Amino acid sequence: MKSKSLVSIDQCTKEDILRILDNARKFEANPNRKVLEGKVAATLFFEPSTRTRLSFETAVNRLGGRVVGFSDASTTSSSKGETLKDTILMVSNYVDLIIMRHHLEGAARYASEVTNIPIINAGDGANQHPSQTMLDLYSIQKTQGKLTDLTITMVGDLKYGRTVHSLIVGMSHFNPTFNFIAPNELRMPDEQKNFCDKHGIKYNEYTEFTEEIINQTDILYMTRVQRERFTDLEEYERVKNVYILKNDMLKNSRENLRILHPLPRVNEIAYDVDDNPKAYYIQQARNGLFARQAIICEVLGIPVEE
Amino acid sequence: MKSKSLVSIDQCTKEDILRILDNARKFEANPNRKVLEGKVAATLFFEPSTRTRLSFETAVNRLGGRVVGFSDASTTSSSKGETLKDTILMVSNYVDLIIMRHHLEGAARYASEVTNIPIINAGDGANQHPSQTMLDLYSIQKTQGKLTDLTITMVGDLKYGRTVHSLIVGMSHFNPTFNFIAPNELRMPDEQKNFCDKHGIKYNEYTEFTEEIINQTDILYMTRVQRERFTDLEEYERVKNVYILKNDMLKNSRENLRILHPLPRVNEIAYDVDDNPKAYYIQQARNGLFARQAIICEVLGIPVEE
Amino acid sequence: MKSKSLVSIDQCTKEDILRILDNARKFEANPNRKVLEGKVAATLFFEPSTRTRLSFETAVNRLGGRVVGFSDASTTSSSKGETLKDTILMVSNYVDLIIMRHHLEGAARYASEVTNIPIINAGDGANQHPSQTMLDLYSIQKTQGKLTDLTITMVGDLKYGRTVHSLIVGMSHFNPTFNFIAPNELRMPDEQKNFCDKHGIKYNEYTEFTEEIINQTDILYMTRVQRERFTDLEEYERVKNVYILKNDMLKNSRENLRILHPLPRVNEIAYDVDDNPKAYYIQQARNGLFARQAIICEVLGIPVEE
Repeated sequence: MKSKSLVSIDQCTKEDILRILDNARKFEANPNRKVLEGKVAATLFFEPSTRTRLSFETAVNRLGGRVVGFSDASTTSSSKGETLKDTILMVSNYVDLIIMRHHLEGAARYASEVTNIPIINAGDGANQHPSQTMLDLYSIQKTQGKLTDLTITMVGDLKYGRTVHSLIVGMSHFNPTFNFIAPNELRMPDEQKNFCDKHGIKYNEYTEFTEEIINQTDILYMTRVQRERFTDLEEYERVKNVYILKNDMLKNSRENLRILHPLPRVNEIAYDVDDNPKAYYIQQARNGLFARQAIICEVLGIPVEE
Repeated sequence: MKSKSLVSIDQCTKEDILRILDNARKFEANPNRKVLEGKVAATLFFEPSTRTRLSFETAVNRLGGRVVGFSDASTTSSSKGETLKDTILMVSNYVDLIIMRHHLEGAARYASEVTNIPIINAGDGANQHPSQTMLDLYSIQKTQGKLTDLTITMVGDLKYGRTVHSLIVGMSHFNPTFNFIAPNELRMPDEQKNFCDKHGIKYNEYTEFTEEIINQTDILYMTRVQRERFTDLEEYERVKNVYILKNDMLKNSRENLRILHPLPRVNEIAYDVDDNPKAYYIQQARNGLFARQAIICEVLGIPVEE
Repeated sequence: MKSKSLVSIDQCTKEDILRILDNARKFEANPNRKVLEGKVAATLFFEPSTRTRLSFETAVNRLGGRVVGFSDASTTSSSKGETLKDTILMVSNYVDLIIMRHHLEGAARYASEVTNIPIINAGDGANQHPSQTMLDLYSIQKTQGKLTDLTITMVGDLKYGRTVHSLIVGMSHFNPTFNFIAPNELRMPDEQKNFCDKHGIKYNEYTEFTEEIINQTDILYMTRVQRERFTDLEEYERVKNVYILKNDMLKNSRENLRILHPLPRVNEIAYDVDDNPKAYYIQQARNGLFARQAIICEVLGIPVEE
């Protein structure tokens, strides 16, 4: 990678991505390796995210490292008026690695510029969440046996969903075809569509969530319509139930289709889908452990043995 | 045990209990054993309980395991509308053991049904708290030299106190005699009295807390009248001071009498009792460390050496 | 030390201080030593203080120990009415060492009187914060090559700032000269000035923050005017900007001058000072890790090898 921090999936070349995914595979074969012995990671969650925090903290612990940190900034010095720069410099004094989540876009990049220790961005506002993208890529590769020439259908909130935006960038090295299915109010922004155009990536846009599209899909990437992204709650109530995946919509889908979801889900995937072997969102979350172990070793420059 | 999870004391046979208590004894002789090396436990406290959490987390750490988790659900995905099932499945991806506390009765049992990894119930609403019962039984056995044929007097809130309900079940294998002392509003529910009848367990009910009863007692089990159980705070104010143990009430008590309390106490045991050698509630809490280490090894199928 | 707990800097003799600082130096040379293997420390932060907590928790982890605890008392049994004594006794059952912060003056001393395990005071109200003093002394010794015969200028809130009060006591063994610069409302209390008189320590008081004083200073100790100490917020707004250090005020200062600050700062040191080699507040915080490792070993009676 260009930097020893992982701030954004954009900074990863195709080779970076393939190397990290290959290391994730090695960690899946053996997640308990003492490569972080004597090292301390800080998990600085200025905004709560239990799922991501537990995944990273387990990753560090299984590698023999130790964790300090906070899960909520409301009781930190930030609330006394301390700048992000001072907080990062202070914590950099103690630890070998900072894993941070922040509500402001650009916070992780800024942090990586003020400190000499590696920063892993665990989500900065609506911007980036590169470890999520890496586990999505790992899940795609693992279930499809390849990353190239796949049709990926993204459903739900494509406007505010940072995971779908980052996945477009991550997949851009592998000749994908995208289907974007969203209500008008939440459709894929021009920025991402321009990115596709510039990189010669094929995409189609739909407002209807139909079996016909599902049946031509390899990866069905569902997203949550997040209440907290809406300023108008009436608008939220109107659209939240429009794009729900039900099991009978899968009856003619491809054998290799797998359903992904960054989780948590609320009701956008009906519970009768859970027992379908094409449902993969729980295993996908498990892959996060291995992808994050690979990322941690990448930024710390620790080689991963077979 | 019938299951590899510990959800309720009901599921433990007499042999299960005796084996776990014997292992607790081994851990008391040496609490630092590296039997959990490479293992990660999650402490999922959807409802805060610092005492129980610290006890379990120390137990895991002294056994060489690692801990991830949360101490308060207000900042978790549950608050974004995620189901308990999804939360449990997600965490099951990462860890080897889940220790959970939840405000809803039945939550731990439900969790044990959706995941393949062991669940230890650290309290579910007013229902069960089996590790408390195990440490109570260990404290009784240790101080009395036996579990059989003892007279146990329970005082205070016998209606809402889950610890006394579970202790009745745990002791039912050992031919106890119970005295239930409570105000009318908080007396032992019919369910527990029917259980006693069905198992041929002798019990007496009282509304007065007298020396005469204390003097015929081996184990005096005091409980807190918990403010949070009352909807009517006036009623709470009226009854909270009725059943207070004072040191001079112990002057003619049996030599082997020991006073237990699940803690925290507020004022139901006067401070002049603390220096009486019959006061055992602090050592009782210490026994929780060993009982919990034994439970953790039991559900993980780890043998405990002498 | 007179006690195995560290409650207050007053209890440390000159020899105690010099020994702890010498051990801090050893830890700076190698902070990762497995001297706490098998030991568990509790961080009981009844009042939040992320900086101090992370520093202590990193110290324990780098020494191979484990940490349990809480970062905020709002969800603990204290909020159910449990006394501090019961909480301390309960936790003492589980762990080898308690590091505690409390909003009430005297809380740490009281805790040290009810338990047999060592207590480290991580701040009790406006009273004491001895590990901060130890890291301040370590920073002074390291940057000046000595502790004796230095001129120390303290600026800002000298009334409520416990760090400056403790530093006066800690330095009293080393023949310092103090300059106290504060607005009238926040000047050094009589108690500390009487202490100086009694110990033959020279001090001058000023209300103006001038270059002339800076130019005769070896250690410039800036403090934050803490909003939370004010009952009258208008008064806070009036004084908060009066004592701001700017880079051009340092142009004729001594070569050996170093600027300390207990952090977090808000705006009492302008950002253009950060790149001045005389700014030392970030490295000072780093010294806290080593000073705290030395304190932990001191109270546990663990010798520190070269």
